[in-house]
Amino acid sequence: MDIISQEISVPSDGFSDIKNITDQVTAFVTESGFEEGIIHIFPIGSTASISTIEFEPALVQDMQDKLEEFAPHNQTTRHGETWGDDNGFSHMRATMMGPGITVPLHEGKPVLGTWQQVVIINHDNRSRERRIFLQVMGK
Amino acid sequence: MDIISQEISVPSDGFSDIKNITDQVTAFVTESGFEEGIIHIFPIGSTASISTIEFEPALVQDMQDKLEEFAPHNQTTRHGETWGDDNGFSHMRATMMGPGITVPLHEGKPVLGTWQQVVIINHDNRSRERRIFLQVMGK
Amino acid sequence: MDIISQEISVPSDGFSDIKNITDQVTAFVTESGFEEGIIHIFPIGSTASISTIEFEPALVQDMQDKLEEFAPHNQTTRHGETWGDDNGFSHMRATMMGPGITVPLHEGKPVLGTWQQVVIINHDNRSRERRIFLQVMGK
Repeated sequence: MDIISQEISVPSDGFSDIKNITDQVTAFVTESGFEEGIIHIFPIGSTASISTIEFEPALVQDMQDKLEEFAPHNQTTRHGETWGDDNGFSHMRATMMGPGITVPLHEGKPVLGTWQQVVIINHDNRSRERRIFLQVMGK
Repeated sequence: MDIISQEISVPSDGFSDIKNITDQVTAFVTESGFEEGIIHIFPIGSTASISTIEFEPALVQDMQDKLEEFAPHNQTTRHGETWGDDNGFSHMRATMMGPGITVPLHEGKPVLGTWQQVVIINHDNRSRERRIFLQVMGK
Repeated sequence: MDIISQEISVPSDGFSDIKNITDQVTAFVTESGFEEGIIHIFPIGSTASISTIEFEPALVQDMQDKLEEFAPHNQTTRHGETWGDDNGFSHMRATMMGPGITVPLHEGKPVLGTWQQVVIINHDNRSRERRIFLQVMGK
């Protein structure tokens, strides 16, 4: 049993832009040489989330619309009024969804459905290089 | 320290049917013989979620109603219009809730509250055998 | 590789009161002496959630308002009508957000953004000492 980690950086637009990071996740698992275990995928920062989705453009847009419905980007917030930081909606989306996810590894690969991709969602109100911490634990 | 995994399959109706899988989770922990560690419970596929709930019929129905309110099953989606796949709502529910959960193990048992059961929620628009990957890591 | 766990208790008001537990999490990591690994933070009970947030009072209030909007505390629920337990909203909030989170450890510290704090949210309709299970796994 051992553990290996790596930080990656993913460019993304704001307002819950959704980027597919399955290739980076799979590549890190392959390089690590682990056969059985977990990979934990954690977004560094309080305005991003990791989740899984069938990554196709129509559904990605549906999901962004749903997040906009849940916490509209132009909603007045105490956070915005107090700090002049107009990303209160970003924080609420991120805290509701939660930060990272864990994916099991089996026979050297992440265990995922055929149409289940790992994504980072940048809820912030601007383009950002999102930092993601990948950590493989197992054998 | 070691790691053991098992895939199980749980029959479920669609539209966010909620099935209690606490017995299967506990049984796998007991069989594995681990005393301290974690069990990670991961739904294979992009239209299911794992969470915890007080599993009693009235609350289960309340939760299904809340998910219906969050993303109605008859809502028009780009996913549906593009692919003829009328389960856009299922995907949005699943991505919002996130996929798997981790439960700690202590003295050979999952650490859960008395009224805290582990469930799989099948958000899809049809009955499905939902595949779940269980993984115990610890000692 | 090894694993160490500790249960802590955090006083909290009800109705999605949000308490910052980052200091307790960091202290347990430091005491454990682990350099690389994960810490899993799990709320024992079905009416609490763990997440991350920029912990400042205005945003904390925004988040509580959003949870109130998602599942109002005075909403009639089958759970309440059946059991006389007026906390149906608490359960729906907790199940939607999910229970625990995992935070990676690197060089002896939790990997978190500068404005990313770990919190417990007590969704229940009364003050409670919330029990939290902390578990460090790694080396």
